[in-house]
Amino acid sequence: MAKTYIFGHKNPDTDAISSAIIMADFEKQTGNTEATPYRLGEVGAETQFALDYFKIDAPELLSDNLSDQKVILVDHNEFQQSADSIADAEIQHVVDHHRIANFETAAPLYYRAEPVGCTATILYKMYKERGFEISPEIAGLMISAIISDTLLFKSPTCTDEDVEAAEALKSIAKVDLEQYGLDFLKAGASTTDKSASELITMDAKSFNMGDNTTRIAQVNAVDIDEVFERKEELEKEMLTASAEEKYDLFVLVVTDILNSNSKILAVGSEKDKVGQAFDVELDNGTAFLPGVVSRKKQVVPQITDALS
Amino acid sequence: MAKTYIFGHKNPDTDAISSAIIMADFEKQTGNTEATPYRLGEVGAETQFALDYFKIDAPELLSDNLSDQKVILVDHNEFQQSADSIADAEIQHVVDHHRIANFETAAPLYYRAEPVGCTATILYKMYKERGFEISPEIAGLMISAIISDTLLFKSPTCTDEDVEAAEALKSIAKVDLEQYGLDFLKAGASTTDKSASELITMDAKSFNMGDNTTRIAQVNAVDIDEVFERKEELEKEMLTASAEEKYDLFVLVVTDILNSNSKILAVGSEKDKVGQAFDVELDNGTAFLPGVVSRKKQVVPQITDALS
Repeated sequence: MAKTYIFGHKNPDTDAISSAIIMADFEKQTGNTEATPYRLGEVGAETQFALDYFKIDAPELLSDNLSDQKVILVDHNEFQQSADSIADAEIQHVVDHHRIANFETAAPLYYRAEPVGCTATILYKMYKERGFEISPEIAGLMISAIISDTLLFKSPTCTDEDVEAAEALKSIAKVDLEQYGLDFLKAGASTTDKSASELITMDAKSFNMGDNTTRIAQVNAVDIDEVFERKEELEKEMLTASAEEKYDLFVLVVTDILNSNSKILAVGSEKDKVGQAFDVELDNGTAFLPGVVSRKKQVVPQITDALS
Repeated sequence: MAKTYIFGHKNPDTDAISSAIIMADFEKQTGNTEATPYRLGEVGAETQFALDYFKIDAPELLSDNLSDQKVILVDHNEFQQSADSIADAEIQHVVDHHRIANFETAAPLYYRAEPVGCTATILYKMYKERGFEISPEIAGLMISAIISDTLLFKSPTCTDEDVEAAEALKSIAKVDLEQYGLDFLKAGASTTDKSASELITMDAKSFNMGDNTTRIAQVNAVDIDEVFERKEELEKEMLTASAEEKYDLFVLVVTDILNSNSKILAVGSEKDKVGQAFDVELDNGTAFLPGVVSRKKQVVPQITDALS
């Protein structure tokens, strides 16, 4: 049996790493013994906390060329967020909770998308539908991914199904959602131990918007001001990355995970459009956005609209 | 509650029409009272046979602009096969069994694709998963769509799940699959009552292949030779359509539904590539392809490869 490569997006967050591991477990239960999880980037501190807590190894970093290889994508579909050789792969299956764009296959495939808060929630439903066993480790990863993507159920992307899944899984994983959740989120929200370059890359995604390429990075923090003390340095790194990668706009979203607000920093030729997007006046490239925590629901559509 | 527009592809076949009606019934059972089926073209003789047999009205022809309207796509996803204003619609859900290409949304959505022989087979599974009631009329449409898409289970696109669905549905619809199936397919395979222009348009789809636009029409027939008696006329209509719509290649696939073979006719600047695609020498633009009955599995990938 040929290997099936399973992975989430570049700059993987907890859902991208966890869903790859979970999907590989799911595939094995269907009889696909060669299902193997991979990752497309470094494991962040938040994800590492979950892997350590539930005693699971991180997936291997993908280095193989995927030309004509069997592939399953989780937590993403846009090719620019995927492996570099994705266009030549045989995509068998996608499980995702994002919009669909810049995605194409030559052959029919399985595709399961639902507008819920987290890919792991869809995977949870797939286990239930098939009557598959959910181990404590897999339950722990599902919970971690859900808490990460929904900021402990506070994000507007969070749905009843995400909450129901986490509630149903907590007894299998043997965790208290609130206490585990806060410890886990705080582990990923430490910013002082990271360079400016790390902060703008560790959870960054590119989006084609009209004729523009927009880069949007998000950083979780307990103290937003601590991050903005390094504004000059952050701006320089964002401008350098934009020059190298030809981004027309680079937006950094720093999210206060305790109070559910964000402050943004924008650079690039299209940065005036960001003020328009949120109906605010940028102050030296920055703006405070009360209640904004979701890149997917509260940032990407607004900037997409402003740019088109 | 705002209306939800539900429709299959342009030049609708039985799966496109039936799946729209079935999905509207499914949506109503979820509580979406404004779910309304539509069609993007004329109802063919085969489909009309099924509608008459099971006493169901054809959906209304779509004429509304879909800008900002809620939409569910069945049996297709590629925008060039969809409603003209599809790019401005809010696509809520897609249920399909084709490859994914030229499809994009601004927001997350439900998307369910499976590589089975027929969209109605996926819909059948969705009813079963939710425990929804399948009426004799809906069962009849599901069976008709499955028989149409799989040529009475003989196409290589036919899967065990298609056969299982039809077998499970036959007692609800109260039909003998073999006998109903042949009568139904023959109703759609009459070619002498159709003009050359009708033959090349009634089940035609466009595909973007590399830099080329390829049009592939399929005609079911009981007697292939009867169709090719009108070769000159067909070629002229295909060339006229190509000039008007800027097709680089137009291929007509005439399929013998009783013996499961096809004869093709190709016109256009890229027509030599068609011989390459099937490893045959075209004879005056034609070639006999033994065992070929599926456009999706035995024609589109082969021509796509030859053109790229």
